Amino acid sequence: MQIDLNCDMGESFGAYTLGRDEEIIASVSSVSIACGFHAGDPGVMRRTVRLAREHGVAVGAHPGLPDLLGFGRRDMACSPEEVADYLTYQIGALQAFCTAQGVALRHVKPHGALYNRAAGDGQLVRAMARAIARIDRDLLLVGLAGQDKSRMAAIAEEEGIAMVFEAFPDRAYTPEGTLVPRHLPGAVIHDPATAAARALRTVTEGVVEAIDGRLVPLVAQTLCIHGDNPQGVALAAAIRAHLQAAGIAVRPMRPA
Amino acid sequence: MQIDLNCDMGESFGAYTLGRDEEIIASVSSVSIACGFHAGDPGVMRRTVRLAREHGVAVGAHPGLPDLLGFGRRDMACSPEEVADYLTYQIGALQAFCTAQGVALRHVKPHGALYNRAAGDGQLVRAMARAIARIDRDLLLVGLAGQDKSRMAAIAEEEGIAMVFEAFPDRAYTPEGTLVPRHLPGAVIHDPATAAARALRTVTEGVVEAIDGRLVPLVAQTLCIHGDNPQGVALAAAIRAHLQAAGIAVRPMRPA
Amino acid sequence: MQIDLNCDMGESFGAYTLGRDEEIIASVSSVSIACGFHAGDPGVMRRTVRLAREHGVAVGAHPGLPDLLGFGRRDMACSPEEVADYLTYQIGALQAFCTAQGVALRHVKPHGALYNRAAGDGQLVRAMARAIARIDRDLLLVGLAGQDKSRMAAIAEEEGIAMVFEAFPDRAYTPEGTLVPRHLPGAVIHDPATAAARALRTVTEGVVEAIDGRLVPLVAQTLCIHGDNPQGVALAAAIRAHLQAAGIAVRPMRPA
Amino acid sequence: MQIDLNCDMGESFGAYTLGRDEEIIASVSSVSIACGFHAGDPGVMRRTVRLAREHGVAVGAHPGLPDLLGFGRRDMACSPEEVADYLTYQIGALQAFCTAQGVALRHVKPHGALYNRAAGDGQLVRAMARAIARIDRDLLLVGLAGQDKSRMAAIAEEEGIAMVFEAFPDRAYTPEGTLVPRHLPGAVIHDPATAAARALRTVTEGVVEAIDGRLVPLVAQTLCIHGDNPQGVALAAAIRAHLQAAGIAVRPMRPA
Repeated sequence: MQIDLNCDMGESFGAYTLGRDEEIIASVSSVSIACGFHAGDPGVMRRTVRLAREHGVAVGAHPGLPDLLGFGRRDMACSPEEVADYLTYQIGALQAFCTAQGVALRHVKPHGALYNRAAGDGQLVRAMARAIARIDRDLLLVGLAGQDKSRMAAIAEEEGIAMVFEAFPDRAYTPEGTLVPRHLPGAVIHDPATAAARALRTVTEGVVEAIDGRLVPLVAQTLCIHGDNPQGVALAAAIRAHLQAAGIAVRPMRPA
Repeated sequence: MQIDLNCDMGESFGAYTLGRDEEIIASVSSVSIACGFHAGDPGVMRRTVRLAREHGVAVGAHPGLPDLLGFGRRDMACSPEEVADYLTYQIGALQAFCTAQGVALRHVKPHGALYNRAAGDGQLVRAMARAIARIDRDLLLVGLAGQDKSRMAAIAEEEGIAMVFEAFPDRAYTPEGTLVPRHLPGAVIHDPATAAARALRTVTEGVVEAIDGRLVPLVAQTLCIHGDNPQGVALAAAIRAHLQAAGIAVRPMRPA
Repeated sequence: MQIDLNCDMGESFGAYTLGRDEEIIASVSSVSIACGFHAGDPGVMRRTVRLAREHGVAVGAHPGLPDLLGFGRRDMACSPEEVADYLTYQIGALQAFCTAQGVALRHVKPHGALYNRAAGDGQLVRAMARAIARIDRDLLLVGLAGQDKSRMAAIAEEEGIAMVFEAFPDRAYTPEGTLVPRHLPGAVIHDPATAAARALRTVTEGVVEAIDGRLVPLVAQTLCIHGDNPQGVALAAAIRAHLQAAGIAVRPMRPA
Repeated sequence: MQIDLNCDMGESFGAYTLGRDEEIIASVSSVSIACGFHAGDPGVMRRTVRLAREHGVAVGAHPGLPDLLGFGRRDMACSPEEVADYLTYQIGALQAFCTAQGVALRHVKPHGALYNRAAGDGQLVRAMARAIARIDRDLLLVGLAGQDKSRMAAIAEEEGIAMVFEAFPDRAYTPEGTLVPRHLPGAVIHDPATAAARALRTVTEGVVEAIDGRLVPLVAQTLCIHGDNPQGVALAAAIRAHLQAAGIAVRPMRPA
């Protein structure tokens, strides 16, 4: 059995530092690197690819909306064609840094508002998948594990690429299998042991205990961990150690 | 005998249109496409690559400084390493649009202040050449034909890539073989027949008549023409027709 | 009887020119100047304020979303507080250019997606009105004349400022008094005489003939005319001439 | 006797936090607030003005070059007129936030490359002073205390405004009275007691001990302290305490 642990990285910009990339990298098997629209800049991208290469972790692109001020979290009324162009641009930019360092680009994980919109918008997923397929059919598209995932995977496959689904071991889920919004009580799990136990259950049983105690199906090929605070680093280490102790290999994502 | 005619393209941005790309494309064998820093945006890049493909002209990147407000014309105190990162980013972004449309990227021509600085700054040329070589050693670096070109070509070669040099048939030259600054009288040649005759002489004899009447050496593998005004379109057509009538093939640039 | 004719101006940016500001200014009594977020830049703002001063027309701010790439036309999920901050920033920036040239700032007309959202979103109008009131209670807030205008005016008044409503003589209206979307046939009126006749009827009778032939109420204190194409300039001149011939004074906007 | 202690503030941007504004504010009598070009954003500006108001410290603008990626530290080949427009825009933007909160704007301190260039470029100082004078003749322009200051002050005065000069108690000075460049050994003074003693000597005697031990004249109306690291906060507190213990009043800047 195997699972991927991924973390968003390279979110610093110019004089601004964000994230504890150099600490969290020890716990992950993949990184998703910001590409300069919502975060990241050319120098940060180069250094983050180098960090990933030094640690032997897989590299993916983490493209976002052109909204540095809003960190790509605010939805914008962009057409699917505009989003496809933004993905093409950002993926290409990161690819050049990968090529320059002899690193393969493996996946594309849309960021923020793009990620959220993609969780239920088939037209957007089709536009994203088509843009990615035209660059490299071996790139995996990462989406939120949940209700619509079969439909989204089918759309991506029609366009020629495979999807990989992501779960969040430090987030509470609703009985419907969606994430409990961050502003609600209990939405974020801070205890490393609890998060690690939940991660293991998702990997081995394909379920998660929802916020009301019911078990809901949750099948994922990658688990997202966060490196933007000291707690995140500890939590990531706990998740990795717990999975490995249970005999789960932590390896770069691959489709189901 | 052959020569390349190149034009800067894809300089529109969002709601702003610049250049008569669809008219001038008929006269050129190569285009240098802006990459979103000083001009251009993802949608413009996609459409400009498509335009080039439809007309069968070679595609190059036209990367600039991150200064949309100044159109990349104002020099910025960026380090060579910063410039290398900006080139890597922009070349990669354009490459993705090329890959998506099955078009090969052939050359890199720095824009504006970067182009000007590169004409005499060996350290900058080295950083640029190294960045380009790490992406694709078949990419040609375009520089200003003139005094320092042997030195610059040698530096680029040390880093693994070839340079191609560019002359301006609609610009006056000093007896030293440099461009007469635009603000001086006579700096720009508006008459299509004169420009065409100068272009032919540069191609066939490797010289240009300087502003004082002397002949100065001017060896170039590509001639730059401008498509940002109606006169430019007419001038480009005249240059192409005159060259072809003299038996010169107009073909994508290649090193000397 | 009097009416204001206003035109959006100062939408150029850096090397990019947009609009025929110097031609259209002869037909208007007010201008709304872009403030650098969706269009415009500091130099353009200075020159546009000067142009307005030279022609003796009233100056307003035309603030937009921070989306130059989308020209402020794409809605963004900004909170009312964020929008209030964006307005404060942009109004202040334009005010400084006005102060420097001894010109009074008279009104604020939100641009694009902000304008559209404000037509029905009382919470947003409240945030805008509050931000404006804190800068200068004599500034007028311009909104779309139509169904919700009483409610919006009441909200603005609660926050301490007056609203002024705008009609579009070159646009078709639905029987409900809203604008026919641009992509529908007949949405835009190109004939100067027709537009001029409609403008006069709105000013003198407070009605407009809807696209189905019915008369609908349309009370406005300012009419928007467009200066981004040669037809717009002719149409603006025709509207002004027709209104003046009918004895209507063309004067800067004031509340009803 | 009195002196001003000032600190640059409001340099956060969107999701990025920079500086310990809420800690350092207790030690200063003036703040210089970034205005959205090299750092800062509308929300940050509003909150920083509020913080200053709550602590009763004077507010100034800290305008920079339009280079967020380079934090305004990289010089750009902008004309004096362009710089004047950038200052007008940014000062106006901050003024609106001040007006909205009933706070007076007191000074303008150019940031980074603009500040450095202004230390010796009379033409630039003239353009800056003229732009500021057209907004408000009571605004003070802050410049580097040193060799050229009489000449700069005279130029500013010709344009209608007063200058105030700034010294750096945590920086070493050359025997010529200029700052020892940061990359040289001993350039930055980390010991709070040493910095405090130097600050006091500058205030009371108008001199500083240069890096070679000689005393050089250094007359300043404001001392700059830094709040971007924990040491800065401690150093600021030490300087303030030492000055006050010596009977020096810490008060907003005023011309000599």
